[in-house]
Amino acid sequence: MRQPVDRTPVWMMRQAGRYLPEYRASREHAGDFLSLCKNADFACEVTLQPLERYPLDAAILFSDILTIPDAMGLGLYFETGEGPKFERTVRNQADVDALHQPNANTDLGYVMKAVSTIRSALDGRVPLIGFSGSPWTLATYMVEGGSSKDFRHIKAMLYSQPEVLHALLGKLADSVTDYLNAQIEAGAQAVQIFDTWGGVLGHSVYAPFSLDYMHRIVKGLKRSHQGQPVPVILFTKGGGQWLEAMAATGADALGLDWTTSLGDARQRVGGQVALQGNMDPSVLYAAPDRIREEVERILAEYGKGSGHVFNLGHGIHQFVDPEHAGAFVEAVTELSPKYHR
Amino acid sequence: MRQPVDRTPVWMMRQAGRYLPEYRASREHAGDFLSLCKNADFACEVTLQPLERYPLDAAILFSDILTIPDAMGLGLYFETGEGPKFERTVRNQADVDALHQPNANTDLGYVMKAVSTIRSALDGRVPLIGFSGSPWTLATYMVEGGSSKDFRHIKAMLYSQPEVLHALLGKLADSVTDYLNAQIEAGAQAVQIFDTWGGVLGHSVYAPFSLDYMHRIVKGLKRSHQGQPVPVILFTKGGGQWLEAMAATGADALGLDWTTSLGDARQRVGGQVALQGNMDPSVLYAAPDRIREEVERILAEYGKGSGHVFNLGHGIHQFVDPEHAGAFVEAVTELSPKYHR
Repeated sequence: MRQPVDRTPVWMMRQAGRYLPEYRASREHAGDFLSLCKNADFACEVTLQPLERYPLDAAILFSDILTIPDAMGLGLYFETGEGPKFERTVRNQADVDALHQPNANTDLGYVMKAVSTIRSALDGRVPLIGFSGSPWTLATYMVEGGSSKDFRHIKAMLYSQPEVLHALLGKLADSVTDYLNAQIEAGAQAVQIFDTWGGVLGHSVYAPFSLDYMHRIVKGLKRSHQGQPVPVILFTKGGGQWLEAMAATGADALGLDWTTSLGDARQRVGGQVALQGNMDPSVLYAAPDRIREEVERILAEYGKGSGHVFNLGHGIHQFVDPEHAGAFVEAVTELSPKYHR
Repeated sequence: MRQPVDRTPVWMMRQAGRYLPEYRASREHAGDFLSLCKNADFACEVTLQPLERYPLDAAILFSDILTIPDAMGLGLYFETGEGPKFERTVRNQADVDALHQPNANTDLGYVMKAVSTIRSALDGRVPLIGFSGSPWTLATYMVEGGSSKDFRHIKAMLYSQPEVLHALLGKLADSVTDYLNAQIEAGAQAVQIFDTWGGVLGHSVYAPFSLDYMHRIVKGLKRSHQGQPVPVILFTKGGGQWLEAMAATGADALGLDWTTSLGDARQRVGGQVALQGNMDPSVLYAAPDRIREEVERILAEYGKGSGHVFNLGHGIHQFVDPEHAGAFVEAVTELSPKYHR
């Protein structure tokens, strides 16, 4: 990921998503969200949609972050406008013990089928990135029973029953390792670990309850497949203060949100890892000229040379005008070559 | 705030609040939330409640963060379980122009009456801290029309109509300055600026759209009253990466959330400002022994000497057991003297 390039590569987190009218059209015919994720042809269709529109440098697997907890037996479902929910929660050791340890190739075979279907359809056009939620992030949904504002139950568990939480995180780390390795074998050419909620942890508990488990996963991943390296990207939203520790896991790249200066981050850890990010997705609400200005600012902040993968600092919002997303990709494509001469 | 002391002073953000049964009892008799904030006797009663229970070192004015936008004419109301809402939002220059510039002593006279009532009732027992939301934080509610998850409208404004947002923030900065100065004249002995949502801003826009306006307020505040210094505390939740810039405003103290290491923060800015914080309020869900352990860890992290005001890293949660809050205050009181010898 830090090889010399002619221009800065670019993709967008959640690039296959609701902001695209063709995605919304596909969804209309295809039933509820979870059924879609389990349908390899649908996953392939929507994964390719943004590539038809924009000159992106990677495809990202269309799937849900909560496939593993669902396969563990918690009963994932979606209520309209309410986000993901689980029929059962994990609140004590017995709940952890009762979790099924999924076999990625059988219990989550639908994801592997999606990966191989997409990989074939891509036919070498751009690499395919697989992904998983981090153990901590998955655990927040499993313990809270869905999305949360205050993370009340999991933080109570962290401080009152840390051994229960460690048991849960350990099980999740094993499952995520197995899951990502299966994605790699099925054809994913890079993998990203999304630690969406690591940033709600205190600085003294982030390492033991989130980072250490991601470290364990990184160590357990196949780092090459069929003779090609498989880069690992680690992304803790709100983790800007912990980049040194994240880089020390041996990941190939770190994702950055927009609260961190890309220039500072490069100085701190740019010698060890590539950096991915970090435009605020809300900039895409602005006019194309303003988007272009922000792209230029971020390119200049990183400076000359390779090691930067342009991306948003979080998933693209559903209300973004697709033309604005196009202006973003175009700006990176047009403005970045001068930083690579 | 950085004078030698015998032990580390302690108070809790939102210490007068729903976790206290006596607060809930007072509220039952007293009508809706906004009426309560406008009733000086009620505000005084609930401000003093935590002081009856715990040996706290400061009282914090009971009031709402959104009194200024309400006085500007937006029509604040509360829907049960939904948080604050405004009848009208601010989306363009005409909306900004239409905002009434409140006179703190008349339009917000009920707050000043609460301050002077509380100050008399305290009778010198502990100092009274006044507060306001930061311009950026107030603006988020005014533009979104209430609480927000994605800050869609205000970020669109920031990137598309920055001049409109600057006009709004300028008006707010003047109002906040006037409001805090009036609180100081009414008897507030320190003031805190709550920048609850500054941490959602990108690192390149935090300064121009939040910090600079807080800086302007700090410069406009009466820094002493009746011969006594009036310390100013600046708190940007999620602002751990920007402490140097915050310290450069001339504030006396910075509030820290739990994602920042207090030891690192002291090294970075401890020579310029006192530091307030920074236990995760969720630790209060744990048993008293665990709370005590965390207090000890934070005291040790700051190390010996003055300049630390113990607090939570955000407001106390409503589901916390009041005995656990007591264990927290007691732990600070008992464990901190050895760091001041």
